[in-house]
Amino acid sequence: MLGEIIAIGNELTSGRIANTTSGFAARHLFASGYEIHAMHTIGDAPNLIGEVLKAAIHRVDFVIVTGGLGATDDDLTTEAVACALERPTIPNLELLSQIRSHLDAISASPVSPLEKLAWLPQGAEALTLQARISGYQLVHAGKPIFFLPGVPHQMESLLIDQVLPRLALWNQGRHLVSFQRIFKTLGMEEAAINDLMSRLNLDRRIDIGYYPVFPEVHVSLTLRSPVAAEAASLFATACRSVQVALGDFIYGQDDDSLAGVTCHLLEAAGLRLATAESCTGGLIGHLLTQVPGSSHSYLGGVIAYANGIKIRSLGVEETLLAVHGAVSPEVAEAMARGMRHKSGADIAVSVTGIAGPDGGTMAKPVGTVFIGMATENMSAVHPFYFSGSRQQIQEITAKTALDLIRRYLLQQGRAE
Amino acid sequence: MLGEIIAIGNELTSGRIANTTSGFAARHLFASGYEIHAMHTIGDAPNLIGEVLKAAIHRVDFVIVTGGLGATDDDLTTEAVACALERPTIPNLELLSQIRSHLDAISASPVSPLEKLAWLPQGAEALTLQARISGYQLVHAGKPIFFLPGVPHQMESLLIDQVLPRLALWNQGRHLVSFQRIFKTLGMEEAAINDLMSRLNLDRRIDIGYYPVFPEVHVSLTLRSPVAAEAASLFATACRSVQVALGDFIYGQDDDSLAGVTCHLLEAAGLRLATAESCTGGLIGHLLTQVPGSSHSYLGGVIAYANGIKIRSLGVEETLLAVHGAVSPEVAEAMARGMRHKSGADIAVSVTGIAGPDGGTMAKPVGTVFIGMATENMSAVHPFYFSGSRQQIQEITAKTALDLIRRYLLQQGRAE
Repeated sequence: MLGEIIAIGNELTSGRIANTTSGFAARHLFASGYEIHAMHTIGDAPNLIGEVLKAAIHRVDFVIVTGGLGATDDDLTTEAVACALERPTIPNLELLSQIRSHLDAISASPVSPLEKLAWLPQGAEALTLQARISGYQLVHAGKPIFFLPGVPHQMESLLIDQVLPRLALWNQGRHLVSFQRIFKTLGMEEAAINDLMSRLNLDRRIDIGYYPVFPEVHVSLTLRSPVAAEAASLFATACRSVQVALGDFIYGQDDDSLAGVTCHLLEAAGLRLATAESCTGGLIGHLLTQVPGSSHSYLGGVIAYANGIKIRSLGVEETLLAVHGAVSPEVAEAMARGMRHKSGADIAVSVTGIAGPDGGTMAKPVGTVFIGMATENMSAVHPFYFSGSRQQIQEITAKTALDLIRRYLLQQGRAE
Repeated sequence: MLGEIIAIGNELTSGRIANTTSGFAARHLFASGYEIHAMHTIGDAPNLIGEVLKAAIHRVDFVIVTGGLGATDDDLTTEAVACALERPTIPNLELLSQIRSHLDAISASPVSPLEKLAWLPQGAEALTLQARISGYQLVHAGKPIFFLPGVPHQMESLLIDQVLPRLALWNQGRHLVSFQRIFKTLGMEEAAINDLMSRLNLDRRIDIGYYPVFPEVHVSLTLRSPVAAEAASLFATACRSVQVALGDFIYGQDDDSLAGVTCHLLEAAGLRLATAESCTGGLIGHLLTQVPGSSHSYLGGVIAYANGIKIRSLGVEETLLAVHGAVSPEVAEAMARGMRHKSGADIAVSVTGIAGPDGGTMAKPVGTVFIGMATENMSAVHPFYFSGSRQQIQEITAKTALDLIRRYLLQQGRAE
């Protein structure tokens, strides 16, 4: 079953706001076995909204429209639809009373702009009765069209709770089975991965995609098939080949994050981590603490941006900084050792480098980074020479630090 | 001059990768006075690519196509274009020799898949001779079409360096003047801002847009006009009205970031900041150190995720933690004071809270956050009760902490 997605709003066509809702919808529809033919983003232009909507209904089996449903003056979707599909707006009485009772509770004004939310194109069925969220379904030319708000979390919950179940009912017994796995890698270039993959001679029915998501490269395997059992084993075999070929460059799959995998390995080993960050300024800690439950394996650390903090909070010796400079293997090692000592962690990782755009020298150009690691029995420093913008250098440094911990834990696990 | 943007790739229509290039292009085209009529995202389906491209050329004055130009097997844009526009691909000899000389330097293989990058549709003009970046211009039906890579930084540099100057030449003397300002706010709800704005009775030619960018709300004013002088003064007057109405809720404009504005105010006041973060895990430090030159005003801090680090690195008394709990005004204040003392900073900000999804209690539900601040002469704690996902609570906490510093510095500046 084929669909199209239409996102509406001048904030999107002017590029001011990134359109994240269309991608979210596409991802969940894909996972449920639907194929998205095309996604369109249209400004607040009623005529063009109508034109694109009519063309989409003609081409595919269902359409999802997001945005322009709010109560502010730049929300024009419902008017555009009413006009294009020749369905005048009429008030949904249930919605209207809902909105009014909500308003009574907070203000005494007789007519509120929020009442606009209760006026829907003729034949529309409301997807929610919550007073501040707008969404409805319309069946036109025998095909379902879903209208959802543009605000990401509202759109996302209506998509999951209302659209997917309604599509499944609509669609009973018609769709293909689809298999997809994303292998997430760090440390190998896209071209090198492509080269390795093409030597595997995977079954031709399997689609392979390569996606650089800086600084990572994701490799996707996709199979769509009407016969589930044979397809499942074919797909599993292909996945195993890829895993063998890419080995430890694969840090995870599908929804895994590098920080999540690292936390999981730490927890499994019963080890606790601390971080000492200079040029990444807290990004490693931020990535780790985005993971729910990371407090089991991550203690915290020091953002040692200024030299004073390296000295006071990590015990780095002033002479070390004076002799070798803040960006040096010696200081990276002292930071990791000091962090481990001060925090009582089992493992400490440290980062010092030059993220740019200024601060580079001939001997230590922008992108020079030293990552240190200290455990009870060892300490080590790895030098790196990254390139890119300030933000890219911070990102690749933080992820490389996590990856060094991940690989260390994998090795320890195998040695046992 | 009206344009459309077409992004190509199954990674986009399956929602696996967020399409950031179309937004980037739209933003820069808009700023240069072009209007984007629509943006389309199409999978790796040659027929549909051709169909959408032909329709777009018919509708608008120029088209930008991104993605599917690489050397891997899933890159199909050039073939699709050759077929749809009936322009067979022929090798661009200059590109081919460039690619071969590059290959000679790194490998001895006789034919490389990279040579595919030199085969362009008949009549195409290469936008770059760099061996690993693909991009070309084609004039079809008297209108320019620009083909750019899907990799964001490659696409972005070709857009800026090649497409915008070429469009400007193409377009001499034809386009409208456009004015736009984005006011970025924190702390006031979208509906309340809409209400305030509608009472200003701004000139009807000015478009107003409201964009919640969690946790911020951005308000845009846009004016397009053929007469520059009158428009400029009209627009300036409207902007001043908005600034007066929203006051300190506006933290900045256009490309400003809250962290950037905060660093700037710190530097102007000659003050240095340190951070002590528990539930935000380094996010405040990360936001500050994304700003180039932030080392002038930001010293660093402590990620005090575990209680042990609060005690050892910030000097928080164990009894305080035992009596009041880690998430308490008392601990927030002790963290800020301790951080200021240990770092020698002029101002320290601290954060302790429950980001969830677990860890909430009846007395302190998920979203309970205390933000502390300490200076030479005072210390203060502000309680907050946020809602949302773990990531949202971390984001709103970090930005609210920055905003408290910003508002403190504004007040200090006015008091002087």
